[in-house]
Amino acid sequence: MRETEVRESVIEGRNAVIEAFRSGRTIDKVYILDGCNDGPVSTIKREAKKQGSVIKFVTKQRLDQISETGKHQGVIAAVAAYAYAQVEDMLALAEKKGEPVFLVLLDNIEDPHNLGAIIRTANLAGAHGVIITKDRAVGLTAVVARASAGALNYTPVAKVTNLSRTIKELKEKGMWFVCADMDGTRMYDLDMTGPIGLVVGSEGEGVGRLVKENCDMTAAIPMKGDIDSLNASVAAGVLAYEIVRQRIGK
Amino acid sequence: MRETEVRESVIEGRNAVIEAFRSGRTIDKVYILDGCNDGPVSTIKREAKKQGSVIKFVTKQRLDQISETGKHQGVIAAVAAYAYAQVEDMLALAEKKGEPVFLVLLDNIEDPHNLGAIIRTANLAGAHGVIITKDRAVGLTAVVARASAGALNYTPVAKVTNLSRTIKELKEKGMWFVCADMDGTRMYDLDMTGPIGLVVGSEGEGVGRLVKENCDMTAAIPMKGDIDSLNASVAAGVLAYEIVRQRIGK
Repeated sequence: MRETEVRESVIEGRNAVIEAFRSGRTIDKVYILDGCNDGPVSTIKREAKKQGSVIKFVTKQRLDQISETGKHQGVIAAVAAYAYAQVEDMLALAEKKGEPVFLVLLDNIEDPHNLGAIIRTANLAGAHGVIITKDRAVGLTAVVARASAGALNYTPVAKVTNLSRTIKELKEKGMWFVCADMDGTRMYDLDMTGPIGLVVGSEGEGVGRLVKENCDMTAAIPMKGDIDSLNASVAAGVLAYEIVRQRIGK
Repeated sequence: MRETEVRESVIEGRNAVIEAFRSGRTIDKVYILDGCNDGPVSTIKREAKKQGSVIKFVTKQRLDQISETGKHQGVIAAVAAYAYAQVEDMLALAEKKGEPVFLVLLDNIEDPHNLGAIIRTANLAGAHGVIITKDRAVGLTAVVARASAGALNYTPVAKVTNLSRTIKELKEKGMWFVCADMDGTRMYDLDMTGPIGLVVGSEGEGVGRLVKENCDMTAAIPMKGDIDSLNASVAAGVLAYEIVRQRIGK
């Protein structure tokens, strides 16, 4: 896997890096300016050794390249809790398991607790992966990892630029897409037993128009109450488990 | 409804009350020592008028009575976003709607986001109420209200001291209780169409032993993955919707 895919974010500056270590964040790698050896840098080296982080001594040019703020003070830490997977890996996983593909696609989920809970659900519902978008959506941060309760170690997550394009490409490979939509067909009345992608949107806006148009079906959870919608991770869970139920044949 | 039922918590002391107003908390009532009129108290009166909170001028004896810390400095605010209901109200609601009772009982859910999401789910799944416990569990705080997305305005929530005792009393009235438990019977293989209470525990510990022993059935969500359990609000959602599905007859 290429390094750019693995790197989640960088933390720059001596104090910020020391704080990151002390707050318990998983730091994969620390870049230190070659020859730098003052007090704070010694502390960072010590913390890095304690936590098993790789230390790389690099030139100022290299640090400037990696830096996103331009204010690295000779130290940059790469926080890389989780590597993004490729969509192809998920298809290969389904094939290896001899199961019809089951993916969960998220259209701009911004709440890290929801994203973590959905990755957790995807794992337990037997989905082969979760696809998120690059834009405003939350990435695989430490909060997401914690909310996923370990599922991030098992369930691949891919990040794509254009969800509609990804859906189109996967439809050409024989997948069907069902979009969560409260105005859709009641979920029990759909056939979701084939190779399927479940598309769930953010709570405020739901699934975007273009993404929805590219889906084959829209699925509604029956609603008896007074309010508008379920929490996004609960809705994803209820729909994912309707797919599980149909596949089990109950 | 009695005042003691309505009152969620009190905030004591001038600065704390001013901060509470400024942080946007819903304050129903402010008790101010009669005759008190200094700067901070004027600020509190102004904020109270702006937000429509009731101002009550009371004696020192009355303030001492209301106070929980004994350090009220002449000002106590009563935060009372939501009133707790009685379990009887829920049974009456089901009867009025001509539906078999459907309650959600939570054994020590400590995360306010989860509690809010579960109240939201209960509302949309057509449950007649949510029962929480007094002990360590989270109450109806502002965070819970926000996470419930308005459902707290519609779905009654009762707080009981002893969940096992409440279950026993409701069983005598003809209700059945099903407890979420990963070692239980697969949820599809249970009959959950009658008057039912769904009992969900905290993520770490699940439903307590005594509470579980008082339930008639244990329901397991099928798990295909690598990790231990779903997020508590997702598990409650999947089980609540299995009850909905069985009741619809799909």
